[in-house]
Amino acid sequence: MPSISIKGKSMPESPIRKLVPYAENAKKKGIEVFHLNIGQPDIKTPDCALKAIKNNTIEVLSYSRSEGSEEYRQKIADYYSKKNINVTANDIIVTTGGSEALLFALGSITDPGDEIIIPEPFYANYNGFSTASGVNIVPVISKIEDNFALPPIEAFEKLISPKTKAILICNPGNPTGYLYSKEEIQKLAAIVKKHDIFLIADEVYREFVYDNAQHQSVLSDFGLENNAIIIDSVSKRYSMCGARIGCLVSKNKDVIATALKFAQARLSPPTFAQIASEAALETPQSYFDEVIVEYKDRRDTLINELAKIEGVKVAVPKGAFYCVAELPVDNADTFAQWMLEDFSLDNKTVMVAPAAGFYSTKGFGTNQVRIAYVLKKEDLIKSVEILKAAIKKYNTI
Amino acid sequence: MPSISIKGKSMPESPIRKLVPYAENAKKKGIEVFHLNIGQPDIKTPDCALKAIKNNTIEVLSYSRSEGSEEYRQKIADYYSKKNINVTANDIIVTTGGSEALLFALGSITDPGDEIIIPEPFYANYNGFSTASGVNIVPVISKIEDNFALPPIEAFEKLISPKTKAILICNPGNPTGYLYSKEEIQKLAAIVKKHDIFLIADEVYREFVYDNAQHQSVLSDFGLENNAIIIDSVSKRYSMCGARIGCLVSKNKDVIATALKFAQARLSPPTFAQIASEAALETPQSYFDEVIVEYKDRRDTLINELAKIEGVKVAVPKGAFYCVAELPVDNADTFAQWMLEDFSLDNKTVMVAPAAGFYSTKGFGTNQVRIAYVLKKEDLIKSVEILKAAIKKYNTI
Ligand SMILES: Cc1ncc(COP(=O)(O)O)c(C=O)c1O
Ligand SMILES: Cc1ncc(COP(=O)(O)O)c(C=O)c1O
Repeated sequence: MPSISIKGKSMPESPIRKLVPYAENAKKKGIEVFHLNIGQPDIKTPDCALKAIKNNTIEVLSYSRSEGSEEYRQKIADYYSKKNINVTANDIIVTTGGSEALLFALGSITDPGDEIIIPEPFYANYNGFSTASGVNIVPVISKIEDNFALPPIEAFEKLISPKTKAILICNPGNPTGYLYSKEEIQKLAAIVKKHDIFLIADEVYREFVYDNAQHQSVLSDFGLENNAIIIDSVSKRYSMCGARIGCLVSKNKDVIATALKFAQARLSPPTFAQIASEAALETPQSYFDEVIVEYKDRRDTLINELAKIEGVKVAVPKGAFYCVAELPVDNADTFAQWMLEDFSLDNKTVMVAPAAGFYSTKGFGTNQVRIAYVLKKEDLIKSVEILKAAIKKYNTI
Repeated sequence: MPSISIKGKSMPESPIRKLVPYAENAKKKGIEVFHLNIGQPDIKTPDCALKAIKNNTIEVLSYSRSEGSEEYRQKIADYYSKKNINVTANDIIVTTGGSEALLFALGSITDPGDEIIIPEPFYANYNGFSTASGVNIVPVISKIEDNFALPPIEAFEKLISPKTKAILICNPGNPTGYLYSKEEIQKLAAIVKKHDIFLIADEVYREFVYDNAQHQSVLSDFGLENNAIIIDSVSKRYSMCGARIGCLVSKNKDVIATALKFAQARLSPPTFAQIASEAALETPQSYFDEVIVEYKDRRDTLINELAKIEGVKVAVPKGAFYCVAELPVDNADTFAQWMLEDFSLDNKTVMVAPAAGFYSTKGFGTNQVRIAYVLKKEDLIKSVEILKAAIKKYNTI
């Protein structure tokens, strides 16, 4: 029997999907499961995007340009300029989701054995992409007590080695919901320039900020033309996760030229999805306004309800649609599985993502969960009621 | 200025796209360019696939399952069973094109520094995927004089080292058009079993075989349940290259479990494209019959016309829609560029792919080109006429 690669063996399993079989079993038993475990919004995809697909007149569905069509990249550049991100079409490579942009970024700037520093907890698939690229993640801890703000810059400084190629941030954060301030980005800008390394900013949740806060892109006025790489995606912005379109953005010409070679090897991003994504750029502002009102309302509901459970600690999210909560249970992983296997209230239960998978340091986050507030208000209220009852019961068995 | 990775620097540029700027310049000068350089068929995508897209009723374009939808994988399995390839839905992972299937296969079975043996000339992007995966390609030469048949198995035997993880074949071949016989696959089966390594077969051109030849899949009756991995794609089969759907197929459960982890990290294949690809499985046999007649006719035309040029040597393709021709020029790369920059006949010129990019051994294939017979008969005839005149002129300057 030929053997699997070491890399393949070390590829992490998705912490979010691990519990799926238990959820499926619960459903088979007739139990309704509220899915607070994944970042799959229930928001409708904008009409203009769906219409563009229905009205397409393609006869030969051919490859597009590897870097994405000229027109689409031009329109993305226009979108960015409205956000005070001054880039041109040439600074953009259209990718198959933000996922592929992350892979291209890692491939372009790291070799096996290199290191990237990431504040943890972080988006779990950074583990998978790093393993696939042979890169070691060096975590720097951010704390629930601080709402997961940027750790002191000295903590980064201590971890930088000759193998460090980049700092990777997610802003606003999945799973933390934290939104970095201007001062925090300035500090990061200074340190990456000082050490001649990259700052990769995963800004796929850029549009999801609440309380009139202002999102700070690394390609705004931080002087990071040589150092910054933005990871972006249409998945969450237009609730079109299934499209599989994102992009990699950088003013650093070497990065773009290199990422383009990775893009050429895989030929092109999906054509239908590009059509939908290009059309999605015409989405009226009212759509986003409504979505933000909806998410803010959901967030407030979730936070208020969680606050009513004794022993629960929550970091109040300022962006994205996740929050990390510390639960009064010994092990959130076991607890989450137990909720699916052995618990229900009024024939309903809840699926959350155990947070340990969002940490790379072993033993961290074991009593935390990530909750995605991607369901409507009533369902969130019911979900927290279930969670409360579950915690109570769990701690008596 | 932070630096690009060694990997990024070593990523090859696409030999096919290198000449694109010259072609664009030619067009600007009003010259018509016949594109024989790329495998982008002009054949219409089946109606059923396009209709399924227009009739979709999606409201929230959500992620699909990482391994592809249950229904679609089931239908792919049914398709395979009609081809004497006995696999179930569980042996299939739907990917973003055959390209991603290749990346998943390499990631699952190789670590940086490992080797894979590939008969050359081979599909140029194997170079890119190998570089991206840190894998070294060990080429084994196949010869135009033998029509690019399988090199003697002793040649493989000599190259197998403890680092060898797989033999990779493309069947039928791009760029060679060669179709491996049952005996050839049996020889490969014996050697991979003997050395406990994998046999990856890129079968994306499975349906394109001529002269009533029979395609031999590595997952037919060769006893390769543990060793074989099929790379497949809808791109060429249904002339839907822009969909970006393919799959990885193996009966080896470790391979599938490992590839699934790579699939989960990137979340899911494109949803619209999956809808189109699932519908494409309903394409009537008459569509393929017509396509095959068309390609066979094109092939015969191309080969006959090329035979009329003195000094041109061609390997007659039995499958796919490419052929490699040796031209009486010193350097096919320079010649191809010159045809775009400085030559035209009746205000028309031809773009071919210099074949050196399909070899990994330096200096091989320098006077060869790959010609894709993806244009209609009249254009092929005209193209060869242009080529003939170009060779004549080029050799007098
Ligand atoms: C932080 C973050 N980055 C990147 C992605 C990748 O998304 P996609 O590949 O759908 O663009 C996600 C998806 O959940 C995410 O949460
Ligand atoms: C031999 C071979 N394998 C794989 C591919 C990848 O195709 P895709 O990613 O479109 O499925 C191609 C495309 O030209 C090819 O010729």
